[in-house]
Amino acid sequence: MIETELGEWRRTHYSNNLDPSLSETDVTIMGWVSSVRGHGNISFLTVIDRMGEIQIVAKKGSCSDNVFEIISKLKEHSCIGLKGKINASEKAPSGVEIYPKDIRVFSLVEKVPPFDPYVKTIKNIDTRLEMRAIDLRRDSLKKIFQARSEVLRLIREYFYEENFIETNTPKMIATATEGGAALFPIFYYNKEAFLAQSPQLYKEQLTMSFEKVFEIAPIFRAEPSRTNRHLSEAISIDFEEAYVDYNDIMERIEQVITRSISAVQKFSNDNPGTEFVIPDPINTIPVYTYAELLEKIQSTGAKSQWGDDLYESE
Amino acid sequence: MIETELGEWRRTHYSNNLDPSLSETDVTIMGWVSSVRGHGNISFLTVIDRMGEIQIVAKKGSCSDNVFEIISKLKEHSCIGLKGKINASEKAPSGVEIYPKDIRVFSLVEKVPPFDPYVKTIKNIDTRLEMRAIDLRRDSLKKIFQARSEVLRLIREYFYEENFIETNTPKMIATATEGGAALFPIFYYNKEAFLAQSPQLYKEQLTMSFEKVFEIAPIFRAEPSRTNRHLSEAISIDFEEAYVDYNDIMERIEQVITRSISAVQKFSNDNPGTEFVIPDPINTIPVYTYAELLEKIQSTGAKSQWGDDLYESE
Repeated sequence: MIETELGEWRRTHYSNNLDPSLSETDVTIMGWVSSVRGHGNISFLTVIDRMGEIQIVAKKGSCSDNVFEIISKLKEHSCIGLKGKINASEKAPSGVEIYPKDIRVFSLVEKVPPFDPYVKTIKNIDTRLEMRAIDLRRDSLKKIFQARSEVLRLIREYFYEENFIETNTPKMIATATEGGAALFPIFYYNKEAFLAQSPQLYKEQLTMSFEKVFEIAPIFRAEPSRTNRHLSEAISIDFEEAYVDYNDIMERIEQVITRSISAVQKFSNDNPGTEFVIPDPINTIPVYTYAELLEKIQSTGAKSQWGDDLYESE
Repeated sequence: MIETELGEWRRTHYSNNLDPSLSETDVTIMGWVSSVRGHGNISFLTVIDRMGEIQIVAKKGSCSDNVFEIISKLKEHSCIGLKGKINASEKAPSGVEIYPKDIRVFSLVEKVPPFDPYVKTIKNIDTRLEMRAIDLRRDSLKKIFQARSEVLRLIREYFYEENFIETNTPKMIATATEGGAALFPIFYYNKEAFLAQSPQLYKEQLTMSFEKVFEIAPIFRAEPSRTNRHLSEAISIDFEEAYVDYNDIMERIEQVITRSISAVQKFSNDNPGTEFVIPDPINTIPVYTYAELLEKIQSTGAKSQWGDDLYESE
């Protein structure tokens, strides 16, 4: 092994693995500091890892002066590794705490970050985006990313179960694949090319041999409108299937949507404290013809004409 | 259900589901025609679907004149649906054949395609690429795509098992993330932007909250060299992990490589006729320091100096 700053130090337990049965056991934990409270000869440190949090109790005299001093001076969001002994304690939030023996500071924070890791909402979106990596340490946001990952996993699982082949189609293309959509131009060496706004033509061609294909990948749409309906760059879940008609395709879309909703519901049940709650999926999504929808839209006073895209009135 | 060309016709069986136990059963199959051989009052049709192939035997008088005539005139690569009755036959390649009752031609080929779907190698790469969708109907190529999909699935499964979160990072970026690499410029509305050549900076930032992240997505490198080492557009398997060092990362890469190799081996064992055979994965990939490799390279006469990228001599 090539020697690095980390040396032989490796996490032995995640915070959620620590319970009173481990009392007196030596452990190594790693994470970031979410709070430090000093009371003279005793300092309480809360360390968060991806599974939860754990309290460290440093008493002067019970650990080396050096360890005590490092812990007492730590600022929130510093990243540390800590070796210590588990102590079962009813007063500790998780029923156990760690008495520190040794500490390594991997990343020392010198300034106090502009927002508290425990706060639920932060109003200043600019501050949040400027420090997005820190912002994402808030539990409510972390859970959104975790749930999203889980949804992607289950959607792919659906396609695999249904014998679809995963494909990757080019994102740099020579011409548009759908009329009308605005494309981002690229300098492709000394030629003009575009970013793909859809894998449509490729997936249609691929069904000629593979029958069932899917792709989950970025699409790019240079639409000038700043509505919440389109993003310049988004992840598209695309599939295509041969020897079926659009009734079958609508059924698949329904299954993908239902699975995704169920996945998020399961995630929020499995992860107490998840803030997002979504309604039960409906068993069957209503199906309308274009003509029916156009009529509904026109009846609200919209000026949509036959052939237009269907949006509700502005 | 909204009526379409397909109507109530749906595939009841894939070709590999048909065996003598289904004798006398009515089935509906769908696929493309790989060969038609007419002998006066009898025509043999081979239809390929994603699972394999099945023989149709049309005898004048045993099916309607209309069906017989359509079948006799079909050209290779036409897409059809066919209803018929299973007949167990020792003479048929798969032990069964279908006596047709009704046929629908979804896509009628009028010209004979420039290459035989059964041929193993086609020398003219231009012809192949011009008709890539047809080219990919050759079994040897189909298997490459199928194996690739399976490898992607197993790599993601590895990351999920190891508790990585799947993320998607922007592909349109304001500045380069790695020095030196050539970027494709984009017109981003009225500003200049670039295509991302790596999710490096994003995944590093994401580890600050998620600790373990991965992304499988396109990367774009505007490198002028037309070597086989780089592609302008490629799919990158990226991961990043906190609280480990590069020894751990090398171990993970080793695991991903070993799994990928095993996946391809399993695929070729499970799919008789697969043409690609790859060697057994080695248990441990040798590890060298930069200095050791530089020395090895220099000893071959290469002019590489300390700090250069490591490539074998040209």
